[in-house]
Amino acid sequence: MEKVTEIKHYLQQNDIDGAFITTPDNVFYVSGFKSEPHERLLGVMIFKDAEPFVICPHMEVPDLKASGWSFESVGHKDTDDAWEILAAAAAKRNVELNTIAIEKAHLTVERLERMETLFTNSKFSRLDEQLNDMRKIKSEDELVKLRKAAELADHAIEIGCKEIAEGKSELEILMAIEFEMKRMGAEKMSFDTMVLSGPKTASPHGTPGERKIQKGDFILFDLGVVYDGYCSDITRTVAFGEPSKEQREIYETVKKAEQAAIDLVRPGVKAMDLDKAARDVITEAGFGEYFTHRLGHGLGISVHEFPSITGTNEMEMQEGMVFTIEPGIYHPEITGVRIEDDVVVTADGVEVLTKFPKELKIIEA
Amino acid sequence: MEKVTEIKHYLQQNDIDGAFITTPDNVFYVSGFKSEPHERLLGVMIFKDAEPFVICPHMEVPDLKASGWSFESVGHKDTDDAWEILAAAAAKRNVELNTIAIEKAHLTVERLERMETLFTNSKFSRLDEQLNDMRKIKSEDELVKLRKAAELADHAIEIGCKEIAEGKSELEILMAIEFEMKRMGAEKMSFDTMVLSGPKTASPHGTPGERKIQKGDFILFDLGVVYDGYCSDITRTVAFGEPSKEQREIYETVKKAEQAAIDLVRPGVKAMDLDKAARDVITEAGFGEYFTHRLGHGLGISVHEFPSITGTNEMEMQEGMVFTIEPGIYHPEITGVRIEDDVVVTADGVEVLTKFPKELKIIEA
Repeated sequence: MEKVTEIKHYLQQNDIDGAFITTPDNVFYVSGFKSEPHERLLGVMIFKDAEPFVICPHMEVPDLKASGWSFESVGHKDTDDAWEILAAAAAKRNVELNTIAIEKAHLTVERLERMETLFTNSKFSRLDEQLNDMRKIKSEDELVKLRKAAELADHAIEIGCKEIAEGKSELEILMAIEFEMKRMGAEKMSFDTMVLSGPKTASPHGTPGERKIQKGDFILFDLGVVYDGYCSDITRTVAFGEPSKEQREIYETVKKAEQAAIDLVRPGVKAMDLDKAARDVITEAGFGEYFTHRLGHGLGISVHEFPSITGTNEMEMQEGMVFTIEPGIYHPEITGVRIEDDVVVTADGVEVLTKFPKELKIIEA
Repeated sequence: MEKVTEIKHYLQQNDIDGAFITTPDNVFYVSGFKSEPHERLLGVMIFKDAEPFVICPHMEVPDLKASGWSFESVGHKDTDDAWEILAAAAAKRNVELNTIAIEKAHLTVERLERMETLFTNSKFSRLDEQLNDMRKIKSEDELVKLRKAAELADHAIEIGCKEIAEGKSELEILMAIEFEMKRMGAEKMSFDTMVLSGPKTASPHGTPGERKIQKGDFILFDLGVVYDGYCSDITRTVAFGEPSKEQREIYETVKKAEQAAIDLVRPGVKAMDLDKAARDVITEAGFGEYFTHRLGHGLGISVHEFPSITGTNEMEMQEGMVFTIEPGIYHPEITGVRIEDDVVVTADGVEVLTKFPKELKIIEA
């Protein structure tokens, strides 16, 4: 319950009476309880001067307790008004709630309006930045899980490469990967696995389907797993049969761009400079217009989390931050290529978590 | 663009100047464009007296156009301030925006605060109820897709049953089901497939794992697919080897409870009466404390949508509404059983979309 204590200290230092945390991923981060309650109410309420509680659907209370939550567990049934139960649990603590910090980037307008009717004397401030600041720096404990998630992702790419064969569909390859990942202990994939082939590689958000692998295709894998609550996210692009000169040029450009960004990673470098390092390589090679997205994103309990690695983000990297580096070129006439790694900022540089080789892999057709 | 017109009429009738729709599922419903932009801005803006537009990430503009959207497409890049681009697109239309209707159950507090700085003369009202009212009644077009999604779900249960064998793990069975679903054209599963066996059936939200099927187990399948944008959701519980008297009693009670609710479905019946019909059967059999959740939920583009079928919802059912009926008994010492169907309210009764038989299926061990 170390995170609860940390937030309680933050409340005391900033004279905020309470905090209500409602993002499932932040509830997990703070309480250790992983739950996806859909439209039902889930939250951790932490107080400056009282014991915290978790509110969750009644039927999940046993799971909450089993997860190690040692303070009060407040359940609500589908026939209850969950918000009144929340207000009653807070009122029982007999503390003034002049200010309640909430996750404004997550809490809906409807939920805030409801809270305003229940906590009529409270003002609502932001807790988002504090939670982002805590989550962006990973502990050694968290890094162990991220390393393991990355190792599984490497293995997934290996399986994908072995499955490639003339006439096999994107979906067949995808299912072989996912089956093996679940068998190896991944909780689930961290997002819908992408296996795209041939012209479909040029769509950064394509959908795998029945298209069958043909000689001359590039095949793009973008995938990740959740291991012990933490995500990986890797992209590799491989060739089936001898690539053309143009395909090779695009591949080598992306590889060089990705490495340029990785080489810059260390405490103090700005996110925007990482984006620029990769983008400059691609622009100089004449493909700038085909690199249509940001360089990367934070990675941890969520597959997309704070911070965003964009060309306008002036944030300086700090030791313990984990994010993706994933430049791409999506050329509609030649091919799409993306290469993505997960990296950690270390005291004096970078640790790359995903280790699958990046030399252009040519699978014999 | 029939839904855009319907909302425009609604704005005119209620003297609301604009509407900004931001739930991905509602954007799909209104515009035909399916996208999951994560933290990036996606929305449809509809005006009382001007042409609508969709705002989405720049790289998705081609997909938006390909989806059939015939009005303006406004793209934003990761380096842009998407909200300023939104405000500019609205300003270009030269209409007063005294009131803008938003989805308060979806829009975050942060996003509303941002809109308030950009639309300084606007008041923000709710569009949620109007969208719920539109979506809750399915057109024949939508029913065709829901029937097909349900048919695939029936088939998935059949595959699951065929896969059951002594020593096979929950995960192996699960992957066989998902592989076949993707092969048959399901876009994806509508939620994480559940295959639970033995004591794990007693947890309404368990996670499939390496547990191996044993003689005497009940096996619970809860799954669904997305077909052409529409979801199915089915649960069946089957026996591996001859069940005990107690297991049989629980199964028959759930089956009777489910049928009691189905038999009541027709226009005019209240949601709460459906819940009560099933719950009474379970309570009378002495298992009331083990039926710990609501009877069901609306089903359509979202796997959980409006309305909720609970013991306190007085809403009257109308022709064209589609929802699940899914009572369960979760007895920690005997077994868990849940049976779930997707149903449509017809002019004079009910159409059950999921058709897999509900007689207790005993698989030879």
